[in-house]
Amino acid sequence: MREVVQSLEESRIREVANEGLGREGVLKFWFGESDEVTPEIIREAAIASLQAGETFYAHNLGLPELRHAIAGYTHHLHPGQHTDAWFDRIAVTSGGVNGLMLAVQAVVDAGDEVVIVTPVWPNLVAQPRILGARVRTVPLVVDDRGAWCLDMPALLAAITPATRLLIVNAPNNPTGWTLSADEQATILAHCRGTGTWVLADEVYERLYYAGDTANGAAPSFLDVARPDDRLIVAHSFSKSFLMTGWRLGWLVLPPTMTPVMGKLIEFNTSCAPVFVQRGATVALQYTEDITPALVRHLQRCRDTLIPLLAALPGVTLANPPGGMYAFFRVEGQGDCLELAKRLVREAGLGLAPGSAFGAEATGWLRWCFASRDLGRLTEGVERLRRWLAVQPGTHGTGL
Amino acid sequence: MREVVQSLEESRIREVANEGLGREGVLKFWFGESDEVTPEIIREAAIASLQAGETFYAHNLGLPELRHAIAGYTHHLHPGQHTDAWFDRIAVTSGGVNGLMLAVQAVVDAGDEVVIVTPVWPNLVAQPRILGARVRTVPLVVDDRGAWCLDMPALLAAITPATRLLIVNAPNNPTGWTLSADEQATILAHCRGTGTWVLADEVYERLYYAGDTANGAAPSFLDVARPDDRLIVAHSFSKSFLMTGWRLGWLVLPPTMTPVMGKLIEFNTSCAPVFVQRGATVALQYTEDITPALVRHLQRCRDTLIPLLAALPGVTLANPPGGMYAFFRVEGQGDCLELAKRLVREAGLGLAPGSAFGAEATGWLRWCFASRDLGRLTEGVERLRRWLAVQPGTHGTGL
Repeated sequence: MREVVQSLEESRIREVANEGLGREGVLKFWFGESDEVTPEIIREAAIASLQAGETFYAHNLGLPELRHAIAGYTHHLHPGQHTDAWFDRIAVTSGGVNGLMLAVQAVVDAGDEVVIVTPVWPNLVAQPRILGARVRTVPLVVDDRGAWCLDMPALLAAITPATRLLIVNAPNNPTGWTLSADEQATILAHCRGTGTWVLADEVYERLYYAGDTANGAAPSFLDVARPDDRLIVAHSFSKSFLMTGWRLGWLVLPPTMTPVMGKLIEFNTSCAPVFVQRGATVALQYTEDITPALVRHLQRCRDTLIPLLAALPGVTLANPPGGMYAFFRVEGQGDCLELAKRLVREAGLGLAPGSAFGAEATGWLRWCFASRDLGRLTEGVERLRRWLAVQPGTHGTGL
Repeated sequence: MREVVQSLEESRIREVANEGLGREGVLKFWFGESDEVTPEIIREAAIASLQAGETFYAHNLGLPELRHAIAGYTHHLHPGQHTDAWFDRIAVTSGGVNGLMLAVQAVVDAGDEVVIVTPVWPNLVAQPRILGARVRTVPLVVDDRGAWCLDMPALLAAITPATRLLIVNAPNNPTGWTLSADEQATILAHCRGTGTWVLADEVYERLYYAGDTANGAAPSFLDVARPDDRLIVAHSFSKSFLMTGWRLGWLVLPPTMTPVMGKLIEFNTSCAPVFVQRGATVALQYTEDITPALVRHLQRCRDTLIPLLAALPGVTLANPPGGMYAFFRVEGQGDCLELAKRLVREAGLGLAPGSAFGAEATGWLRWCFASRDLGRLTEGVERLRRWLAVQPGTHGTGL
């Protein structure tokens, strides 16, 4: 086997989750998915497709109907281009992660330098390594209140003409950090100068709570870029439509790259199942019913969890403007992998260790707040409070 | 974009298929799939899963129930290992092509040499190129009767200690060529000596008509190899279970590679949809009902098509022992891409050009004989006969 593949890190989140195997009653907030089932209307569309016998190969780039629906959705959020122009830039992929892998395959040769803003979910760092790239990370910096921010001078200094690709995920998993439109324009202008591709993972675009944008969504590179910029934006049906298990996403590409991406899809997965794509097409038809309600609910989740967590003694965290994670530090707890395992065993609380997302996040914990029942979140905080109270050396308040 | 990715060949099969866009009544035999819908019992299992709300992330390696079912199926065909031992060697993938791509990612570094037996379906050649490998092809040789055979001395001479990976697809798409167990043992012994990995695409294992094996299937590397051999075998639900559009397959791996493959799956697609895997689990439960009947039908298709084709003037082809393709040459027709396009336009007959599968197959045509209705095959031959009859310089027999 290849050394680089063997050395890819095992998922530390799964290592924690394994700690919960066979344990009753663990409250699980470790994975990045809601506990809510996909809306019935989406499932019914897939069922109807299966009943109609749509079990054959499909276009590499996705069903034209679905690409058109995605283009219309994109135009609605980003009116800078018409639906037909967006259509020519859309490739349907077998999940957001698959889209990101395809994007890396399209631009990264072995030996190329790739710059990645971290902390970030581990797949983004692993993918260029699989292609043989040299990965250089630029850490966000954390302030006293626990908010993670971009060190723009450090990022721009890291991106040189030798940098083939910048990978950035904002709204960010795990920190909730979000790029402003000005920052996106600055990064893009710099990358135009260095000839660097930008791969923007914007799957949390709709999960944005700041209310300071015209479309309600997080700022997007699509609004500051030209169609022919070296920009690839990755999206997913997972988060905004409660479709994690469907494995469907899409890429927005420079139009000249779309046919090339069709070839890469052929050689990676050939296509996504038609019945899966039928579900997604209906999801987009009903996006005004599904997504705003989902985002309002996630905001309630956030607004329930964050103040309760912040009130715990020794806990540092900021209110995330986007995403679906609380990211926090507990005073006196340095080894977050061990801490996360102990919380599973001793408190029945399942969180993800910060070190899974980058060395600079060691000591932090990620809590996915996408929970159908708000009571699960308050019960989780209560379990953490009781556990902290009996730890030596922390500011326990007693039971 | 990467030069190597831009230079990947567009599908010549799609180029021919595009010729048929908007044309009524074309008989389409160009793609490698049956025109038969997935059996209802399989579709019902997926529907039940969707109704039950199984819309969440799943294990990277596949549902344990499905892996166990695949292990049992493998044990039934290849009793050399028990079901539990096979289980530890199974990874569920998002289609056969996805499994092959994952296998290449696992073993091929940029610059590595990969040897591939051709003609072969184009994805096998493209995948190592995407990883930056140097690809060396070893052509099968064709005899006077149109049968393609392995030139074993040439293959063994091509595989040296510098060869990282051998890729071989048998039963072969497009030629139907099949490796004997002796040939597999010879190849494996040689590759042990050179330290070369073997990636065997055995997705047509069950589509075998020679009747000279104990299990009825084509010879498999799994029957001549040890568990710890550097061998990866790729399988798919597409052909043996009429599930092309479901995008589900599996790999059989050395047991130590299985956890590594789980990581690669995480970084490529994360997992296959649970509802898709439920369909496949039921497919394996009913394999004795589904697969032998399917193979008998395909044999009828083959035995209908081949004699009719062979009887046409100027046509050379051999009876394929495996697979689902007739592969033939028409005297006086050298440019098979142009020939295939003309057959679409002038005869309403959709075939794949041999040059899509390797330069040595230029001048040949591939006809997928997986057809629900045998009448489509005879009508297709009749169209070819009529078309040939009016071509100058061929042995036309008149209308």
